[in-house]
Amino acid sequence: MLIVPEKEIANLMTRAAAFDAVKGVFASMSAKTAYNFPVIREAIGHADALYGFKSGFDKAALNLGLKSGGYWPGNAEKGLTNHQSTIFLFDADTGKCRAIVGGNLLTALRTAAAAAVSVDCLARQESEVLGIVGAGHQAAFQLRAVAEQRDFKRVVAWNRSPEKLDTLRSVAEELGLGFEAVSLDELGAQSDVIVTITSSFDPILQQGQIRAGTHVACMGTDTKGKQEIAAALSGDARLFTDEIAQSVTIGEFQHPVAEGLVDQDRINELGAVINGTTAGRASDEEITIFDGTGVGLQDLAVASAVVELAVGQGVAQDVEF
Amino acid sequence: MLIVPEKEIANLMTRAAAFDAVKGVFASMSAKTAYNFPVIREAIGHADALYGFKSGFDKAALNLGLKSGGYWPGNAEKGLTNHQSTIFLFDADTGKCRAIVGGNLLTALRTAAAAAVSVDCLARQESEVLGIVGAGHQAAFQLRAVAEQRDFKRVVAWNRSPEKLDTLRSVAEELGLGFEAVSLDELGAQSDVIVTITSSFDPILQQGQIRAGTHVACMGTDTKGKQEIAAALSGDARLFTDEIAQSVTIGEFQHPVAEGLVDQDRINELGAVINGTTAGRASDEEITIFDGTGVGLQDLAVASAVVELAVGQGVAQDVEF
Repeated sequence: MLIVPEKEIANLMTRAAAFDAVKGVFASMSAKTAYNFPVIREAIGHADALYGFKSGFDKAALNLGLKSGGYWPGNAEKGLTNHQSTIFLFDADTGKCRAIVGGNLLTALRTAAAAAVSVDCLARQESEVLGIVGAGHQAAFQLRAVAEQRDFKRVVAWNRSPEKLDTLRSVAEELGLGFEAVSLDELGAQSDVIVTITSSFDPILQQGQIRAGTHVACMGTDTKGKQEIAAALSGDARLFTDEIAQSVTIGEFQHPVAEGLVDQDRINELGAVINGTTAGRASDEEITIFDGTGVGLQDLAVASAVVELAVGQGVAQDVEF
Repeated sequence: MLIVPEKEIANLMTRAAAFDAVKGVFASMSAKTAYNFPVIREAIGHADALYGFKSGFDKAALNLGLKSGGYWPGNAEKGLTNHQSTIFLFDADTGKCRAIVGGNLLTALRTAAAAAVSVDCLARQESEVLGIVGAGHQAAFQLRAVAEQRDFKRVVAWNRSPEKLDTLRSVAEELGLGFEAVSLDELGAQSDVIVTITSSFDPILQQGQIRAGTHVACMGTDTKGKQEIAAALSGDARLFTDEIAQSVTIGEFQHPVAEGLVDQDRINELGAVINGTTAGRASDEEITIFDGTGVGLQDLAVASAVVELAVGQGVAQDVEF
């Protein structure tokens, strides 16, 4: 049984490898060679923790397993990450546990990679201004991953507490991009691509605030009730997601569907665009929206990639089990 | 992170420790300080495998985690156990993965312990004849565990292929018990306690085949459609199970409930008998039936016990993670 501890992931995994793994598994999901199992998510009634599993099987890649973990709000005080994840891979031929992989950084990388894949598939080629809504831990990962997909010149960003935007500013400067903290109106008026990455329960971006031709990647909504953009925005846009069933229950598109603004069969799988079975952006005027809900198969895909890298570089610990 | 490999379990775990762990967690479940999460079980469409998770949280013992694995019918040809299980324990205070424990032998021990706890709670004190229906891998575990609960004199056993009863015969002789391969009629007429441990999809024991005062532990039914005893047998008996919700969906009591012979609220939790909040056997004439469906919390309880033993004996491998 191979062990790849959390502390090794940063040295092993690259954004390019995460991008390839996530793009590949979205394609497999749409081709029906990979599927996610039902999600378990429980408020355990101890330490205010949310705990659960995301799991699935990719028949083509033979990736079988789960990510287990959750959210422990008291961890930060103890010097630990509040989100704690571990990924377990199983041998699809025998059921034996094959590898155990630290899942904290990988979760951040695969979430950022999903937005990047959506930008690769759906944003206008000449996109120059990248808008970021939100300034939490995940925002910098989104910025780094998405910035690589187009020849962006500038980053504009908004956060409820603008003083927290300093990390994004430093990352943008490191990437050689201009940076400006702006109002939501300014962000919508200037951006070619917008990534929302918040834990909001109320829509932040409103209809009319986004200009024609924008690609929006909504990456924060992962629970019933959370919402980043006004439902009406989806009414006129072309809609894409990682997994439709999850999108309409716990993702951003739960709202336009519940409000009757969007029929579920108007939502496309991003994997179908990758596979060429669904058209991507049809014009420079169209608004495209990607709802990245986060699926277990993404976790298995990046974990499998990192195990291969770890074995290749001799840093996977092989434990008799 | 602690690792306790499969090969260490036999040297560490005892039937007594499994009995205590399972009895304790049944009590916690009934006291509502422990609960199981929904079960995931998927036919993955590869290697004819069934794969999934049983999971839960025991607030009192702070056992959080899951058993993952399943059934790979082609494993035997490869020299591996068809049932493959790994148990993962998490720190309930932080969400970090705490221990990884081989789950194959533990699954056998905890399943046998559940039957043993039911016999401890429900069988007549003067029980002398133990009947075993089934002769698969699990049957010997059941015999060893149940034999310790009363002063049994003899074992009578039945299997569809009687030639496979030799293992049970050896175990009975090793335990100093008489042994006889019998017909189902003889088994029912002689036994004080009966354990059924088959993968049957048709009822094996019929109404009228069991005498008054018998305790029956049905340990084989774990799937919709499986059945070990005639539904009518439950109509007149006192009924007990580990978890009612699971019993009436994938356990033995799915049949009498579906056929309208038993109202769900007639089924008692074995944990309630342990806690003294529900009466156990009321008379020497009563037939008692325990439906052991197997819950994730049992796996966590025995895994936690084995980790403690492994740490105490210096055989738990501590891997930096």
